[in-house]
Amino acid sequence: MPDLRLYDYTASANCYKVRLLLAQLGRSYERIPVDIFDGDTLTDEYRRINPFRSTPVLGIADDRYLLESNAILVYLADSTPFLPSAAVERSEVVRWLIYEQTDVMPATGGLRFRLQTGRLSPDHPDAARRKNAGHEVLGFLDDHLADRDVLVGTGYSIADIAVYGYVHVADEAGYELDRWPAIQSWLRHVAEQPGYIHDLQPYPPNARAGAGRSIYD
Amino acid sequence: MPDLRLYDYTASANCYKVRLLLAQLGRSYERIPVDIFDGDTLTDEYRRINPFRSTPVLGIADDRYLLESNAILVYLADSTPFLPSAAVERSEVVRWLIYEQTDVMPATGGLRFRLQTGRLSPDHPDAARRKNAGHEVLGFLDDHLADRDVLVGTGYSIADIAVYGYVHVADEAGYELDRWPAIQSWLRHVAEQPGYIHDLQPYPPNARAGAGRSIYD
Repeated sequence: MPDLRLYDYTASANCYKVRLLLAQLGRSYERIPVDIFDGDTLTDEYRRINPFRSTPVLGIADDRYLLESNAILVYLADSTPFLPSAAVERSEVVRWLIYEQTDVMPATGGLRFRLQTGRLSPDHPDAARRKNAGHEVLGFLDDHLADRDVLVGTGYSIADIAVYGYVHVADEAGYELDRWPAIQSWLRHVAEQPGYIHDLQPYPPNARAGAGRSIYD
Repeated sequence: MPDLRLYDYTASANCYKVRLLLAQLGRSYERIPVDIFDGDTLTDEYRRINPFRSTPVLGIADDRYLLESNAILVYLADSTPFLPSAAVERSEVVRWLIYEQTDVMPATGGLRFRLQTGRLSPDHPDAARRKNAGHEVLGFLDDHLADRDVLVGTGYSIADIAVYGYVHVADEAGYELDRWPAIQSWLRHVAEQPGYIHDLQPYPPNARAGAGRSIYD
C-alpha cells in the first residue's frame, strides 16, 4: 500500500467524501491542509499538482496525483466492498458519481457555498434558479430511495458516500429536508455505517468574496 | 451476452459515444430511435425506463436499463481493453468521464445544441460565457495531450471515446480547433482506431425551440 497524502480543505464536502471513505477503510494518510481562500491553490506548485486547482487531490506516489473527488473514491474503493464487482452495479455506481457532480453538487453544494460566503443572497434570482433545480434533483433522489436503503444494489457503496457529501448539509443551502422522507432515512442509514465520521465545517467568515485570494474571486 | 437495446437519438453525441463503442466492440444491438423533439422522451413509458428522460438508455434485460452515457460505456467496456484494469488508471478514466459531463459537454455540446437549434444566437452573452469556458476546457485538454496520444495511460480507452464525442464536433459550436494542435492530433488518432465509425448528425431544422415537444421546451 502506498503512502497517501490528501490535499484537503475542511469546508469542502468533496474533500469530506474522501476523508469519510479513508476513515471507513481504516487507511492512514498524511493530511495536507489547503486554504482555498488564502491562495494555496493559486501557487505554481499547486498548479503542477493539479492544473485545475481544485480540491481534493490524492498523492499516491512521488509525483503521482489523482484528481476529482469521485475518481479518488473509485481508486480507494478498488477491490473493497465499497465498489461492487459486477459490471451492471459498477456502471450504476459510476452513473451516480457523474450525476452527483453534474446535478447534485451544483444545486446543493454550489448553493451552500454561495450563500455561506455571501456570493449570493437568498433572494437573488440565481439562488432561486439553483433551488428549483435542487428541488427536482432531491425529488429524483427521494423517488429512487423510496424502496431501497442504498443507491446501488443492496450494499453501501461509494455512490452513497459521493451523494451524501453535499446532500447531508443541504439544509445549509436552504433546503428543508423534511420534504423528502426517503432521503432522511437514507441519511440516517449512511450515518450508521461502521467507521462513519461527521467531519465537515461550514465556510469560514473570511471566505467572503474578495476577502482572500482564490479561484472563486 | 444479453441482448442489447439502445434508445438512441442521432444528433446526440452522448448517444454517438455508445454507438461508437458498440461498433468497436463488434457488439450487435437493437436500435430504438428516440425523437427527443417529438415528445418521445415525455411519455409515461419512457419515464418508466428513465425518470430523467435523457438519452441514451441501454436496455440490458427485460425491465433493466442503464442510464448516463459514460456509465453505459463503463458497463460495455468491462473486462475489455477499453477499460484499464489497474486501479490508478481506472480512477483516471472515471475522472475524465466526470469532467466530460461537468465541463466538456456544457461548453461544447451544450453550445452546439443551443446554436444549431436557435435557442441561442452566437452574439448572446450566454453564448460568449459558454465559449470562454470552452476555451479554458479545450486549453486544459490540449495541455494534457501535448505529450501523449491518449487521455489515460498508453492505450485508447472509454475516456477517449467520452471526450471525443462532443470535442470532435466543437467546430459546430463555433470553436476553431486549429488553435489546439494536440487536440487535433488526438482527434486523428481516435479516428484511426479499429472499428471507428463517424456517425453523428446535426440537429434537424424541426428541432428549433417551440417546434416540437421536448424536455428542452
